[in-house]
Amino acid sequence: MRILIHTPEAEAWREALVMQLGDAPFDAEIVTTETAGELPADYLIAWKPPASLLAAQDSRLKAIFNAGAGVDALLANPELPADVPIVRLRDAGMGEMMGDYLLYALLHFQRDMDHYRAQQQAQHWQEQPLADKSAWPVGILGLGTLGSVAGRWVHRCGYPVRGWSRAPKNLDGIDSFHGDAGLDKMLADSRMLFNLLPDTPATRGLLNERRLRRLMPGAVVVNAGRGATLVADDLLKLLDEGHLRGALLDVFAEEPLPATHPLWHHPRVIITPHVAAPTPPGPGAEQFAADLLALARGERVETVARD
Amino acid sequence: MRILIHTPEAEAWREALVMQLGDAPFDAEIVTTETAGELPADYLIAWKPPASLLAAQDSRLKAIFNAGAGVDALLANPELPADVPIVRLRDAGMGEMMGDYLLYALLHFQRDMDHYRAQQQAQHWQEQPLADKSAWPVGILGLGTLGSVAGRWVHRCGYPVRGWSRAPKNLDGIDSFHGDAGLDKMLADSRMLFNLLPDTPATRGLLNERRLRRLMPGAVVVNAGRGATLVADDLLKLLDEGHLRGALLDVFAEEPLPATHPLWHHPRVIITPHVAAPTPPGPGAEQFAADLLALARGERVETVARD
Repeated sequence: MRILIHTPEAEAWREALVMQLGDAPFDAEIVTTETAGELPADYLIAWKPPASLLAAQDSRLKAIFNAGAGVDALLANPELPADVPIVRLRDAGMGEMMGDYLLYALLHFQRDMDHYRAQQQAQHWQEQPLADKSAWPVGILGLGTLGSVAGRWVHRCGYPVRGWSRAPKNLDGIDSFHGDAGLDKMLADSRMLFNLLPDTPATRGLLNERRLRRLMPGAVVVNAGRGATLVADDLLKLLDEGHLRGALLDVFAEEPLPATHPLWHHPRVIITPHVAAPTPPGPGAEQFAADLLALARGERVETVARD
Repeated sequence: MRILIHTPEAEAWREALVMQLGDAPFDAEIVTTETAGELPADYLIAWKPPASLLAAQDSRLKAIFNAGAGVDALLANPELPADVPIVRLRDAGMGEMMGDYLLYALLHFQRDMDHYRAQQQAQHWQEQPLADKSAWPVGILGLGTLGSVAGRWVHRCGYPVRGWSRAPKNLDGIDSFHGDAGLDKMLADSRMLFNLLPDTPATRGLLNERRLRRLMPGAVVVNAGRGATLVADDLLKLLDEGHLRGALLDVFAEEPLPATHPLWHHPRVIITPHVAAPTPPGPGAEQFAADLLALARGERVETVARD
C-alpha cells in the first residue's frame, strides 16, 4: 500500500511513520509529495492539500488523515471525494501547546507585563497592585480535545475556568455552559476569553460587538481558533473604548494578515502567525500509525461526520 | 501585647492578622505605623523598616517578623538590635509567584514571543520553528524555599530543571549542583538562568562575564534575587555580542533603576519594578499568626542565624 504525506515538515512525518510502522503486518511505501509528487495513494496524510493533489487520487484512496487542528480547509476543498472517510488528529501534544499559549496570555496580563512594558518605554518605575488569579476567570469557547486539555491545564495553574460548547459537556475543573443563553452568561463572567471554535456558518462573526461587550471590563481576547469567528473591527472598537484591555491573536480571516491591516499596528494587540499549536510530527505520526494498524486489523476508527 | 506592622498594604496585613488571632489565648493590640506611628512593641512585623522605627523599640521587643523575601535589608539596618530574633517568611504563596514569573519568561522565549514582537513591528508574517521544552533547560541559582518551589513548578510544566546551591541538596524533579565546579557545570547546561540568590559578599558580582559566557548560546537571564549578583555591564555586553538572547530583570543594584540606566533602553531586556513575588498579606499573616501562637505556647520558632 502507498501512504502519501503532504504536510509541513513532511520528511519528519515520514521518518516518524516509518519508525512507528516498522513492525506493521503490511508492506507500506511511505512517501512525501516533496519527493514523489502527486501520486494516487491508499492513504493520504495531509494538511491543507492543494485541489490538484486530491484530484490526482483514484478509487484506491481509503482515507485521508487530517494532519492539523481543524478540518475546515479540507472540507472546503472542491476536489474532496464525497465518500472517503476523514480521520481527525486528536491531541498529539496540541492540547498542551494550546494550554501554554493561553497560559502565556494569562501571565502576561495578570502579571501586568503589558503595563510594565509601557512603563519601561517611559523609564517609569511603578509597582502595579497584583490581582489574584481568582480575579482572572477564563472562558473557553469550544470544548473539543484541545479546549478541554487547555482548560484543565490553566485550571491546574490556578485560574478559574469556564467553558462553552453547543451541546452540554461535563468536564473536570471546567464550569460548563451551552446554548445561546449559556454563551451570554459565560461571557459576562470571563476576564480572559479563549476562542477555539471551528469555522462554520454558526461561528462566523460570533464574537461581535454585542458579545464582546458582555465580557468583564478590562477583559482580554485570545483567538487561536479561526479568524472568521472574531469581528476584527468590533475588537478594535472595544479596545479603543477601553472596555477591552488587550488581545493575543493567532488566526485571522485572511492569512497571512495583510500588511496594511490595523491589527498589526494596535499597541494592545499581540500578533502571532498561526503558531499556537503546530502539529508535532512525532506524536501526530504515532496516532495515525495506531489508526492504520487498527484499520489493518479490521477495526473501526473514528472519522469526521460529513453532511 | 502590642504587635506593630510596618509593611506595604499594612492595613490588609492588620485585618488578616486580627482575623487569624481572633481566638488567640492572649490580648493583642494590633496596629500599623500608618495610624499609630513608631511605638515600642512586643513584636514587629516589618518590611524594610526605617532605622528610626527600630531605634524607637525597647527591651520589650521579643522578635521581628521579616515580611518579605530576603533579610538583607533588615540585617543591614544600623539600628537592628543584636539580640532580637528574626523570623523569616517561609513561602506564603511567593514560591508560586516566583514560579509564574519564571514560567512567563520560559513561555515568552520558548514560544518566540520576542521574535514575533519584532516581526509585528515590521508587519512580517513568518512562523518560527518551535523548540521543544526539552531544549530549554532551566538553571536555578538558590534552592531555598522559593527556588525549590519555583523549580518544581516549571518542572511540572515540562521544562528540565537544574539547581545550584552552596551546599548539596536533594530535591524531587531538580538536578542539583553545588560548589564552584558545580556552578560552572550547571551554567554550561542551562538555556534559562533564574537567579534567586540572596545578597551576600559571596554572591556580589557572581554573574559576571566569565560565568554568563558559560551559558548555552542564545540563553536568557532572569534575575528575581538581588541586583548586586548580576554585573549589568557584562550582561549588556553579551546581549550585544549575541551570546545571550534576552533578559527579564526584576531587581537592580540601585532601585528604582535610575532613568538614565542603559538597561531601560535595551530592546531585548524586559524590566519589571521588583514585583516578581510581592508578599500577599493573607498567607503572610497566616504564617506569622501561627508563629505567634507557637511562641505563646512556649514553643521554638525557626529564626534567622546571625553572625
